[in-house]
Amino acid sequence: MKLYIGNKNYSSWSMRSGVLLTAFGIPFEEVKLRFDFSEGSEWTRVIAAVTPTKRVPVLVEDDGFTVWDTLAITEYLADRFPDKAIWPRDARARARARSLCAEMHAGFTRLRTACPMNIEAFFPDVGARLWAEDATLRAEVQRLDAAWSDALGTSAGPFLFGEFSGADAYFVPVAVRLSRFGFPLSERAAAYRDALLAHPAVEDWVADALREQDFLAEDEPYRNSR
Amino acid sequence: MKLYIGNKNYSSWSMRSGVLLTAFGIPFEEVKLRFDFSEGSEWTRVIAAVTPTKRVPVLVEDDGFTVWDTLAITEYLADRFPDKAIWPRDARARARARSLCAEMHAGFTRLRTACPMNIEAFFPDVGARLWAEDATLRAEVQRLDAAWSDALGTSAGPFLFGEFSGADAYFVPVAVRLSRFGFPLSERAAAYRDALLAHPAVEDWVADALREQDFLAEDEPYRNSR
Ligand SMILES: N[C@@H](CCC(=O)N[C@@H](CS)C(=O)NCC(=O)O)C(=O)O
Ligand SMILES: N[C@@H](CCC(=O)N[C@@H](CS)C(=O)NCC(=O)O)C(=O)O
Repeated sequence: MKLYIGNKNYSSWSMRSGVLLTAFGIPFEEVKLRFDFSEGSEWTRVIAAVTPTKRVPVLVEDDGFTVWDTLAITEYLADRFPDKAIWPRDARARARARSLCAEMHAGFTRLRTACPMNIEAFFPDVGARLWAEDATLRAEVQRLDAAWSDALGTSAGPFLFGEFSGADAYFVPVAVRLSRFGFPLSERAAAYRDALLAHPAVEDWVADALREQDFLAEDEPYRNSR
Repeated sequence: MKLYIGNKNYSSWSMRSGVLLTAFGIPFEEVKLRFDFSEGSEWTRVIAAVTPTKRVPVLVEDDGFTVWDTLAITEYLADRFPDKAIWPRDARARARARSLCAEMHAGFTRLRTACPMNIEAFFPDVGARLWAEDATLRAEVQRLDAAWSDALGTSAGPFLFGEFSGADAYFVPVAVRLSRFGFPLSERAAAYRDALLAHPAVEDWVADALREQDFLAEDEPYRNSR
C-alpha cells in the first residue's frame, strides 16, 4: 500500500498515519506530495486523482482502493491487521482511546491554528507570549494535560493504554508542538510527551523532517529570518 | 445507558447519536441539557461531571462509564452490538463509511457555521443569497453531493451502503440543513436527502424538535422575528 503525505516538517496529519504504520511494522510505500498548491505543481496535478478530499494523508491499496482521513485510516488498519493491537484489546480502553482521538480530530483548534507544527523550529519566546496572552490556548493545553493524565493514571505505561497504540500516534504532532513552544505540563503529561518523542517511529519521522529542508513561508508564521 | 443531548432543534451532533440509537432499536434514556451556558444553569451545574469535553452528545453506561464524541459513540455501539450492522459488513464499504464520517466530523466547516441546524426554520431566501455569494459553501455542498452520489452509485439503496448505517446517521443533520436552506443537489443526492428525512428515527427526532419550542437567539442568526 501507498501512503501519500505532505511535507514531513509541517504535515501533522500525515505524521499521525506515517508514525502509526511504522510503529506497527506495516510495510508501505511513502509518496510525498510537497505542499505547493500553485497551478501546475505536482500536488495540483496529482492530488484530485488520489483523493476526493484533496488532503493528505491518504492510503491507497495496490488495486487503487482509497481510504482518506487519519481516523478512517487508523480504523482501516485495525480492521485489516487484527493481529496487531492498533486499538487497545480491552473494549472500554478502546472506547476511551477512540473518544480521545475523536476529540483531537475535531478539537484543540486554537492550539492547532496558533501553533502550527514545525518540527525543526523551537519558539519558546513565542510560546511564553502565547501562554500569557491566550486563555483559550491555555485551556486547551490544560484539557490535553488532564486527558493524558487521566488515561496514564490507569495505564501500565509508558503510553496512554500501555503499549503504543493508535491513540498515541494521534497525539504525536501535539507532543511536537508542546515541546517546540515550551508549554508547561504536569510531570506525568511531560513524561508522556517525552515518551512519544522518543518512540523510534517518531524519531525516524523527525530525522526525515530535519533532512527535508523545504521551507514554506505560509507554515512559518513565527520565523523572522533563516 | 443514557445519552445526554442538547436542544433537539439545534444540536446537530446530538441528533447523530440519538437517531443512530433509535434507528437500531437500542434502548436508551435521553437526558436533555438545554443550551443555557449561564452561571447556575442546569447545563453549567451538570456538564463537567458528565463529560470531560463539556460537549454533547455523551453516552453514559449505568455504571458511569462514559464515551464522548459522536464518532467514538458510533464505534462503541458497533463494538458493543456486533449483531447490529452499525457499520457495513463488507470491510471496504466499512472503510468508505468511516472515511465519509471522518470527513464530516472535521470538515464542511463553512456549511456548518454559515448554516447552523435549525429544524423548525426554512430559510430559502437566505439559502439563495448564500449560494450566490459564497463559493466555499458551494464547493462544500458540491463535494457532499459527489461523496453521496459516489457511494449511492454502488449501493443497493436507499442508503449510502444499502440499509441505514452509522454513516447515514452522520449525514442526517446536513440533510436537514440542505432542505432548510434549499440548496440545489443532483437528482440522486436529493433523493438520498429525502430518504434520510423520511427515516422513522429522523421523523421522531424532528417531531420532538418541533414540540420543543425553546428558541435560542445565538442559534438563530437568520431570524428577524417570530
Ligand atoms: N481531517 C483530516 C485532515 C487532513 C488535513 O487537513 N491535511 C492537511 C495537511 S496536514 C492538508 O492536506 N492540507 C491541504 C489543503 O488543505 O489543501 C485527517 O484527519 O486526515
Ligand atoms: N466533535 C464533537 C462535537 C460536539 C459538539 O460540538 N457539541 C455541541 C452541541 S451540537 C456542544 O456541546 N456545544 C456546547 C459548547 O460548545 O459549549 C462530536 O462529534 O460529538
